[in-house]
Amino acid sequence: MIVIFRQDATEDQIQDTIRKIEGLGYTPHLSRGAVKTICGVTGDDRSLDVSAFDQMPGVESVLRVLKPYKLASREFHPDPTRVEAGGVAIGPGTFTVIAGPCSVETEEQVEASAALVARMGLKLLRGGAFKPRSSPYSFQGLGEQGLEILGAAARRHGLTVVTEIMSEHDVDLVDRYTGIFQVGARNMQNFALLKALGETRRPILLKRSMMGTIEELLLSAEYIMKGGNSHVILCERGIRTFETQTRNTLDIAAVPVIKRLSHLPILVDPSHAMGDWHYVAPASMAALAVGADGIIVEIHPDPAKALSDGKQTLTHEHFEQMMSRVRDLAPHLGVQVR
Amino acid sequence: MIVIFRQDATEDQIQDTIRKIEGLGYTPHLSRGAVKTICGVTGDDRSLDVSAFDQMPGVESVLRVLKPYKLASREFHPDPTRVEAGGVAIGPGTFTVIAGPCSVETEEQVEASAALVARMGLKLLRGGAFKPRSSPYSFQGLGEQGLEILGAAARRHGLTVVTEIMSEHDVDLVDRYTGIFQVGARNMQNFALLKALGETRRPILLKRSMMGTIEELLLSAEYIMKGGNSHVILCERGIRTFETQTRNTLDIAAVPVIKRLSHLPILVDPSHAMGDWHYVAPASMAALAVGADGIIVEIHPDPAKALSDGKQTLTHEHFEQMMSRVRDLAPHLGVQVR
Amino acid sequence: MIVIFRQDATEDQIQDTIRKIEGLGYTPHLSRGAVKTICGVTGDDRSLDVSAFDQMPGVESVLRVLKPYKLASREFHPDPTRVEAGGVAIGPGTFTVIAGPCSVETEEQVEASAALVARMGLKLLRGGAFKPRSSPYSFQGLGEQGLEILGAAARRHGLTVVTEIMSEHDVDLVDRYTGIFQVGARNMQNFALLKALGETRRPILLKRSMMGTIEELLLSAEYIMKGGNSHVILCERGIRTFETQTRNTLDIAAVPVIKRLSHLPILVDPSHAMGDWHYVAPASMAALAVGADGIIVEIHPDPAKALSDGKQTLTHEHFEQMMSRVRDLAPHLGVQVR
Amino acid sequence: MIVIFRQDATEDQIQDTIRKIEGLGYTPHLSRGAVKTICGVTGDDRSLDVSAFDQMPGVESVLRVLKPYKLASREFHPDPTRVEAGGVAIGPGTFTVIAGPCSVETEEQVEASAALVARMGLKLLRGGAFKPRSSPYSFQGLGEQGLEILGAAARRHGLTVVTEIMSEHDVDLVDRYTGIFQVGARNMQNFALLKALGETRRPILLKRSMMGTIEELLLSAEYIMKGGNSHVILCERGIRTFETQTRNTLDIAAVPVIKRLSHLPILVDPSHAMGDWHYVAPASMAALAVGADGIIVEIHPDPAKALSDGKQTLTHEHFEQMMSRVRDLAPHLGVQVR
Repeated sequence: MIVIFRQDATEDQIQDTIRKIEGLGYTPHLSRGAVKTICGVTGDDRSLDVSAFDQMPGVESVLRVLKPYKLASREFHPDPTRVEAGGVAIGPGTFTVIAGPCSVETEEQVEASAALVARMGLKLLRGGAFKPRSSPYSFQGLGEQGLEILGAAARRHGLTVVTEIMSEHDVDLVDRYTGIFQVGARNMQNFALLKALGETRRPILLKRSMMGTIEELLLSAEYIMKGGNSHVILCERGIRTFETQTRNTLDIAAVPVIKRLSHLPILVDPSHAMGDWHYVAPASMAALAVGADGIIVEIHPDPAKALSDGKQTLTHEHFEQMMSRVRDLAPHLGVQVR
Repeated sequence: MIVIFRQDATEDQIQDTIRKIEGLGYTPHLSRGAVKTICGVTGDDRSLDVSAFDQMPGVESVLRVLKPYKLASREFHPDPTRVEAGGVAIGPGTFTVIAGPCSVETEEQVEASAALVARMGLKLLRGGAFKPRSSPYSFQGLGEQGLEILGAAARRHGLTVVTEIMSEHDVDLVDRYTGIFQVGARNMQNFALLKALGETRRPILLKRSMMGTIEELLLSAEYIMKGGNSHVILCERGIRTFETQTRNTLDIAAVPVIKRLSHLPILVDPSHAMGDWHYVAPASMAALAVGADGIIVEIHPDPAKALSDGKQTLTHEHFEQMMSRVRDLAPHLGVQVR
Repeated sequence: MIVIFRQDATEDQIQDTIRKIEGLGYTPHLSRGAVKTICGVTGDDRSLDVSAFDQMPGVESVLRVLKPYKLASREFHPDPTRVEAGGVAIGPGTFTVIAGPCSVETEEQVEASAALVARMGLKLLRGGAFKPRSSPYSFQGLGEQGLEILGAAARRHGLTVVTEIMSEHDVDLVDRYTGIFQVGARNMQNFALLKALGETRRPILLKRSMMGTIEELLLSAEYIMKGGNSHVILCERGIRTFETQTRNTLDIAAVPVIKRLSHLPILVDPSHAMGDWHYVAPASMAALAVGADGIIVEIHPDPAKALSDGKQTLTHEHFEQMMSRVRDLAPHLGVQVR
Repeated sequence: MIVIFRQDATEDQIQDTIRKIEGLGYTPHLSRGAVKTICGVTGDDRSLDVSAFDQMPGVESVLRVLKPYKLASREFHPDPTRVEAGGVAIGPGTFTVIAGPCSVETEEQVEASAALVARMGLKLLRGGAFKPRSSPYSFQGLGEQGLEILGAAARRHGLTVVTEIMSEHDVDLVDRYTGIFQVGARNMQNFALLKALGETRRPILLKRSMMGTIEELLLSAEYIMKGGNSHVILCERGIRTFETQTRNTLDIAAVPVIKRLSHLPILVDPSHAMGDWHYVAPASMAALAVGADGIIVEIHPDPAKALSDGKQTLTHEHFEQMMSRVRDLAPHLGVQVR
């Protein structure tokens, strides 16, 4: 922590602050400049509410030096983590493609998409049974019936399910069907849910909120890891900005930033980031080239009939075309598509 | 709904789209322009996923015409709603001030703030027992013990509690202590929680997410109202932007915009919007002048010792000074401070 | 400046950095913590490119401590500045209302608005002759002819003109007609223009860019002031965010923030901030209550016929109604409306 | 244009609006729905200020249907444009790499970078002589002396100069040294400059503003093209968002969006987008894979001594490493590196 004093801070104010720092068990190091006086504070300040110092007379501002997360950080865990799920090790050397419908709608629809995913040699089938929709009048998902349809299709084709969980109430229920719990963007800071998932040992696909900073995403991962579950896969899915040509703005830089700050794998969701199927293939190629550990993509046999997200969903044909380009490029980037 | 066709749309594509519209039970009205052809669609499209039409060949874009919320809208309910809580009717004619600590920390702290709130003639005491903190290492609140401290102080001073609920698990527990359930910004789209609260009959203080649009805030209110609970109070608490001088950017315009779109009362939270106590009083004055139905403010007998949000918390002395200015101005704006 | 070293920085890397700091004429103060080593650097670093230090091996990040602006800062000039223009001293104690059309269109239109402004006892007439329009197909303003119309109407009614300048080419031309040069949001960082205006001695109304930080606004003021022109009036006109209900998001907090950081007066432009006339009156009331030194408002005798910004323009009747509310409230806030 | 009426609009209000539409020479097409009435308007509305209709009684909102730009659009010019400069055809099939220092500082520095650029088989040398800096105390560039240094180094190595122009004053001066005029992000809506450049016939590298929408970028291109200069190269360089880990947020989706909306080539500036050299190589790879027509990159023989942007500048060694990866990948994406 660094305390920066106001130019007009009095000696008494500076000494009061130093006493407060010492009283909390930290060691102050004062530097008096021609213009400003600053005070470096050493010791682990992760659990300290630094904002309290801002209230002290004479203090201009207070800065943290240590990163607020630990278990998720590269400093703590220098080697990259691979998360195993469904026979795939998500992490370096692999470009994992998770595909499937936005919402589970019918057996036929899921069967068609699952068959395609398996035929393409992929292992992970996504699909939503509980759908977080902005409007209460929108399709809310089939619930447990959806999980059954999804689970049955996955079993038939030797796939592993990735599905969203929206409430800590549903941990046991969803656990019976899924191989990876998906935490949606709107729940990135649903701390009750994160804590509940921290007590499981299943992999968690944690999506960045549309308003979440990279630091907050890593702190949400830290909630899960602090509970004892280190199998966290991060996912960039676009943040909210002023630009309206795409549904969200894909923060492609989040991939190398997270690779540098954290050891956890990071996927990209080009479907939600773009919000328009025309841009899903280029965004997926960008994700591959930037170094992401994979993508999660929405597909549908007939997107014009989809009950949600039709606009951003690839047809099976477009998905196959895209995957052909991904497979051609991947070896030249040193990764295997799974 | 309005469908806008591409300039190069073929007649077949246009006719396919029209058939799809008719097949869904809506009536299409085609307008052929020199440059673009558009198709107005009449009928209630609130439950329709318009994005599916974007996938149809020849379609350029699709626009909704109807507002997606209904129960929360002024068109449905032209007169403004007053929500009764703790003897105050939150709504037109009144400027309701809710005050108290960010976190419940000790009996002494809450007692001091409750005594001040009562002495100033206010009726509603805020305080957090369950705290949504970005970091798992930050103080998470005292939980039920905090509710007890808060409830006891409120009873002693004839006040009504306003406290945050973070999980649908806790509805019964929190219900025993609170007069108003507060839904924090991070939970604005925690739909499981919104549905659970829709089944209660207690007033809900619903805060806007830091990246929620006004329309999404009204849709979240609609989730609660659709469950049968119409006692919703909205709260603007700042949105996330690029500016870092304040913790968030107070969207003061949200107040008149919501007054025009909705009949629900709307408060302002100047503490979280500003993130710095220096700006809480001016922001409160702005809230009063712009037509908000009240404010919710963080106070502490000694903010420099607060376990959370110290920087943005008013001392009791500063709060009294601010309230004196609010009380002086309110009659000239035609409202009573409660 | 503060240099924060990486946890794995070697002693050699730390010493290299210290030598570089000393070589540039600054004094380093090293603090070695259990986890991180930091180095405070004293001396005036305003002209130093701190980003260069980020490239040094072992350095994690570098922070500035001094504010990058000086002439515009309160630390340099503690008393608030009043800028005199047209017989009004813009600054504390006064709420200055500048009104007039978005664009100068016809003599009749400007005459009608100027007559109203004068009749209401106001002194400053706004109007655009050079219009910055996103599209080259939109009305670009009448140019010099517009200045003549505006100047003539102002003279007839004893008013002073406030008009936008878009290019340093036009300084002499616009100078013949205007009392205050207005720099529009899109030109906040047109440094060639700022430097040219710094050489004049006329007041400058400097609008914040729709994506300019408050610090950047003050730095743009600094460009003008460094040239010798200290008559700078700042103007908050809304920033660009994800919210689309209003044209921009009025950052009402910018007023108290700027009052604390700077001695310069600060106005609010509710017309551009809102983009919708329905919200102009509430936003103006908020500006008054938050402590702004005035507002600049668009009016038109018949907004539905305006060639630009019709949606956000008040009719004369609505403007009179709004001003009546402003005049009623102002004395209770200790300011005089001019 | 589409006019959407309020639910409570009267028949008279609807007829008034229709008469106004007809009076302006457009044809109205009314659709009366059960809930809303809408009116499609046919005819070219690019020069119409649609906001004026919002002021009409009974009107809820007005939407444009036609894209506001024309010359820059794919509808007007379906085939992609290649812009020739320095022997390179910037556009499809080519991945053009422009490299050089942020600022021209010394002959030695520019010579070293120019020699490297030439040795690597590239053709275009960037370098800034006029620097737009937020602070007046930052290095402002060497001006004409910088142009001379840059021009001489380019001649020695058979390169073509790309340099920024900040004012329409400098068109003739800069024209003597440069092969491509660069318009910086802060000047994307400096319309006086755009108009001046529209009268030249040199290629223009037009950077997107950090607050500019894609539509506004295309409209700024339209300003140049309307003047008769169709040699416009667009450049995405990151937009401003709430995320602070990178200097800006690279909107990688802008590439495929612009490819779909426009025929103009689009480059990416990974240096300004990232603001940190660690992320420049991954961002460049993403630009290549997403389909950009090239990149513009900052390099310096010793970035730690750079007078501007040191943090985001690649060393020569890192640039060579990056280019080796770019060259390896490009053929698999069907493009030639130039």
